[in-house]
Amino acid sequence: MNKKINKIAVLTSGGDSPGMNAAIRAVVRNAAYTGLTCDGVYRGFQGLIENEFVELGPRDVKNTINRGGTFLKSARSKDFMDKDGRLKAYKNLKARHIDALVVIGGDGTFTGASVFSKEFDMPIIGIPGTIDNDINGTDYTIGYDTALNTVVEAIDKIRDTASSHDRLFLIEVMGRDAGDIALNSGIGAGAEEILIPEENLGIDRLIESLEKSRKTGKSSSIVVVSEGDQIGKNITNVAESIQENLPDYEVKVTVLGHIQRGGSPSCFDRVLASRLGVGAVDALLEGKSNIMVGIEHKKIVHVPFETAINIKKILDIDLIRVADIVSS
Amino acid sequence: MNKKINKIAVLTSGGDSPGMNAAIRAVVRNAAYTGLTCDGVYRGFQGLIENEFVELGPRDVKNTINRGGTFLKSARSKDFMDKDGRLKAYKNLKARHIDALVVIGGDGTFTGASVFSKEFDMPIIGIPGTIDNDINGTDYTIGYDTALNTVVEAIDKIRDTASSHDRLFLIEVMGRDAGDIALNSGIGAGAEEILIPEENLGIDRLIESLEKSRKTGKSSSIVVVSEGDQIGKNITNVAESIQENLPDYEVKVTVLGHIQRGGSPSCFDRVLASRLGVGAVDALLEGKSNIMVGIEHKKIVHVPFETAINIKKILDIDLIRVADIVSS
Amino acid sequence: MNKKINKIAVLTSGGDSPGMNAAIRAVVRNAAYTGLTCDGVYRGFQGLIENEFVELGPRDVKNTINRGGTFLKSARSKDFMDKDGRLKAYKNLKARHIDALVVIGGDGTFTGASVFSKEFDMPIIGIPGTIDNDINGTDYTIGYDTALNTVVEAIDKIRDTASSHDRLFLIEVMGRDAGDIALNSGIGAGAEEILIPEENLGIDRLIESLEKSRKTGKSSSIVVVSEGDQIGKNITNVAESIQENLPDYEVKVTVLGHIQRGGSPSCFDRVLASRLGVGAVDALLEGKSNIMVGIEHKKIVHVPFETAINIKKILDIDLIRVADIVSS
Amino acid sequence: MNKKINKIAVLTSGGDSPGMNAAIRAVVRNAAYTGLTCDGVYRGFQGLIENEFVELGPRDVKNTINRGGTFLKSARSKDFMDKDGRLKAYKNLKARHIDALVVIGGDGTFTGASVFSKEFDMPIIGIPGTIDNDINGTDYTIGYDTALNTVVEAIDKIRDTASSHDRLFLIEVMGRDAGDIALNSGIGAGAEEILIPEENLGIDRLIESLEKSRKTGKSSSIVVVSEGDQIGKNITNVAESIQENLPDYEVKVTVLGHIQRGGSPSCFDRVLASRLGVGAVDALLEGKSNIMVGIEHKKIVHVPFETAINIKKILDIDLIRVADIVSS
Repeated sequence: MNKKINKIAVLTSGGDSPGMNAAIRAVVRNAAYTGLTCDGVYRGFQGLIENEFVELGPRDVKNTINRGGTFLKSARSKDFMDKDGRLKAYKNLKARHIDALVVIGGDGTFTGASVFSKEFDMPIIGIPGTIDNDINGTDYTIGYDTALNTVVEAIDKIRDTASSHDRLFLIEVMGRDAGDIALNSGIGAGAEEILIPEENLGIDRLIESLEKSRKTGKSSSIVVVSEGDQIGKNITNVAESIQENLPDYEVKVTVLGHIQRGGSPSCFDRVLASRLGVGAVDALLEGKSNIMVGIEHKKIVHVPFETAINIKKILDIDLIRVADIVSS
Repeated sequence: MNKKINKIAVLTSGGDSPGMNAAIRAVVRNAAYTGLTCDGVYRGFQGLIENEFVELGPRDVKNTINRGGTFLKSARSKDFMDKDGRLKAYKNLKARHIDALVVIGGDGTFTGASVFSKEFDMPIIGIPGTIDNDINGTDYTIGYDTALNTVVEAIDKIRDTASSHDRLFLIEVMGRDAGDIALNSGIGAGAEEILIPEENLGIDRLIESLEKSRKTGKSSSIVVVSEGDQIGKNITNVAESIQENLPDYEVKVTVLGHIQRGGSPSCFDRVLASRLGVGAVDALLEGKSNIMVGIEHKKIVHVPFETAINIKKILDIDLIRVADIVSS
Repeated sequence: MNKKINKIAVLTSGGDSPGMNAAIRAVVRNAAYTGLTCDGVYRGFQGLIENEFVELGPRDVKNTINRGGTFLKSARSKDFMDKDGRLKAYKNLKARHIDALVVIGGDGTFTGASVFSKEFDMPIIGIPGTIDNDINGTDYTIGYDTALNTVVEAIDKIRDTASSHDRLFLIEVMGRDAGDIALNSGIGAGAEEILIPEENLGIDRLIESLEKSRKTGKSSSIVVVSEGDQIGKNITNVAESIQENLPDYEVKVTVLGHIQRGGSPSCFDRVLASRLGVGAVDALLEGKSNIMVGIEHKKIVHVPFETAINIKKILDIDLIRVADIVSS
Repeated sequence: MNKKINKIAVLTSGGDSPGMNAAIRAVVRNAAYTGLTCDGVYRGFQGLIENEFVELGPRDVKNTINRGGTFLKSARSKDFMDKDGRLKAYKNLKARHIDALVVIGGDGTFTGASVFSKEFDMPIIGIPGTIDNDINGTDYTIGYDTALNTVVEAIDKIRDTASSHDRLFLIEVMGRDAGDIALNSGIGAGAEEILIPEENLGIDRLIESLEKSRKTGKSSSIVVVSEGDQIGKNITNVAESIQENLPDYEVKVTVLGHIQRGGSPSCFDRVLASRLGVGAVDALLEGKSNIMVGIEHKKIVHVPFETAINIKKILDIDLIRVADIVSS
């Protein structure tokens, strides 16, 4: 089955994340190492449709491992949701004699890949690249560790000014429906409270807790709020409620925003991306398709797209307890 | 006149800025070096009124030079605006036999210091500590260089994701009424456009320019907007106008916020703060009062508070031209 | 058995590593959370002998999570190797009514702890804190992830100048007898060659490989050398051999040295340290002794000191293959 | 005179420094802005001789401002020291119709440029790019500010471990014959002692001073040593002398090395490089030749190569006094 693969293509799709370049590099280099040729596709699935390919040899990916973002660029493709668009993509692939695909992205990417793979019997391997760490079947996604460091460094800076002024800061971090970024960066930044979608504290409990912590001698406070948290309509409402109830505090809001998606990847993400990139080509050569390569307890695992996408990853309960204790 | 100074106090007031600790440290160590004793005052002028003093010797300020914020904490004091409050402050200073004050802060701080100094014949020296670089008579204020690096590092990260997605990012930076942070960080970050309070481009000119730069092949763009800029009511309005007029771009807004006030100070700010802290004690011993110590062309200068506060610093016109050229 | 524990003490011993403060903080806060009192001991086992204790409550450890090093300081203690020294230590502990110990350090620390625990029937829990990641029974040790980032950031800088000048850089990194730092940072930094103690390439193979990679178009090269590698007597010898055999390259040597031990801990290390610190107190309350708390596949595990110390951790073979492929 | 300039070339020569790319970018963009065409030359003067040119338009320099090193690469050229080599270079320039040159580098670069300019009546403008800040006639050279931050961040990390172990660290920094890096980074890092070539303390005075500072309660110490300092034969000898005389200290040596030349440039260096790059093209258009564009008190100045090279820059005496006071 794997004899027929001579040429592959690699693309990045959906939101970008630090380490995607390292993953592309590893795909390209393992392709060369195993005697395959490799194309890059610009702008994800849209580039498949619009025929934006580039040949990639081992030297073309040098000096990319330390760069944030993705040099192949990324996009969300409406056209790929239509059968017509996908057919065009398939014809472009065939015209270039491409036998298999590696796609780097999150659940939206894997959903599209799964449909396409079945429709045209095209082997596809997915690599989990998203800062949100919300993919089931892998301990870590590419970019997550870097995003945690970016958040913690930002909150370290904010704590300087919070402590200098006895202020309470509400800091919104990314993570979509998953509280992983908020919970881990909240512990790492020494936050007094962490609001995550998986655990609804309620605004009253929050105010009560802040009041208590003020009494135990905390003069400034950091509250990390996941963007997916539903405690109030949004972070500004939460801030207003706190300010009303705790007039002694000067409450400030910071939305960290897109700095969380960029930056030079951490060593962890570079190594993870290198492993997964190598593993994706290995998987193709083993005849695998329609799976994501993930990492579990430091070993490469193969996870069907269905399992990766449809089963919600469980947040680590122990870590919530640790957060409660160390913030006390 | 300078014979009578045996004991001084130092405080930080107004918004905090990285390098304030280095300035405190230098004041304390030059005091010790020249045979003076020195107290620190917590929470700025409010601490003077509430009698929050602490003795500071050379060993008490060790391991502070690399820390953001101010370990003496800062505050804005309403009570100090009343004669009653200031009288209380004066009595507290006399009770501790303090002969002179060093105050670290911005124009609000110097205004309060100026009134107090005249009212009670108390020698006071000011040190310019604010990220905004909006104090007249000094080339640089403490914290400004660090804030520029923080902004540029943040925009570098955002550019990763902007380039990956062909997006247009509006990024709001601090600076109050001064465009120094926006102009310098905009050049440093390679921004395509920079909006500053000192130069009103108008929204039409901005859109025209962005349209033109898209045509010359720029697929992503960074626009740095000073918080004091008046092009629209606020940055969200500006974003909406652009989005309406340039539907091809995906327009995003990021408000960098309080990360700009914190962080470990740059070497530049640590050296500047050390010079100004030493210079402040030198000035007291030379019998000076009611002045700010500043830096001009690498030399310490003495600037009357009136000159520092009341004359608006001129933005560097040459630099606006440089910005226009390098963003082209 | 756990009823008798009312008061514990915590110390750091051996080489310091980033995240030790976060571990101390978690021990102190979980002690308070579970109703125990807690002392800190300065300078490791030496402080036990010299009676250097300090009471630590939850507020005493605030603003420590982001600091490198250990505020309790660390040392190697010769006196603790003698029964007399250890007896003195025991008496000091008893005089302060301390029922159990948490020790943070590496294999030397655990060896001492193991002897002491048996000798005086004192419950002791170990927390693995070393940048070398050379402790068996835990996926990660505290400080290792931070050290990897420090190394990779340093090599990123060196690559700037290596590429600008077509140079070959030999970069020595820490790790004692373990190649973990070299292998992972080498992959992360995109090194062309990685020399580790576990795999002896030989100087001829190295030169041959560098020659080949020059021919494939690499004009500059980074070779990461573990301090424990035995390819030559030392890194300077290796450099001289390469220079002799490859006169076209300009060979330079950099020994990264002690910057690898310091720095603000990464989010990963802060979370890891928080978990292990909480876990150590939990283990004491469960009646455990003479074990290390480690992390395996994100879960806390209890590992007898003997297992942690005496069995050499196996280097990940898959990762060596990944390194070979991505450097090609 | 300036009418005849239609096409220019830009090169980087000598040791690389962070911000060189920003300077190239500004030269290229101001050339385009003023209607000139511009070539880049690879590998400095050697590339002139070996005919390694590349056309550079405004889009070719995008995403370079944040990169360390120089994408045009740099080299030292022996061939350019011969008249034959320079003649070859001149013929290559004429063959490409290049009317004038911008060279970015240090004193060696300017010396070569000066000879070449006179020999062939070729207008040349120099831009000071070196981390050493040892060029006369400009307040700052490109890369110096970044190097200071790199050094200070490295020493901050080393201080973590120095404080944890009560050690004395000797840290060698770059700077050739100039003490600027050592003096400024020493103040910034809070070093206890700073050894610079301009001021010979003598080993006895150093030991005496360290002894004294130990007695006043300093348990760890950082000594910054400029590579050009002549106190001992080299830093290892200095360390041995100290260790012999102060057996209580554990003395360690770190040579920071080539990390000081790389890294993403600071905002200060990016703005400085942008100004100087723009200024160099402006100077050519004003008919200037054989000068360096420098910065003095925030204004562009024109400095004859002879003045820049032959007159030794004076170290700031005031700053030595500040260092003495704040380290006390």
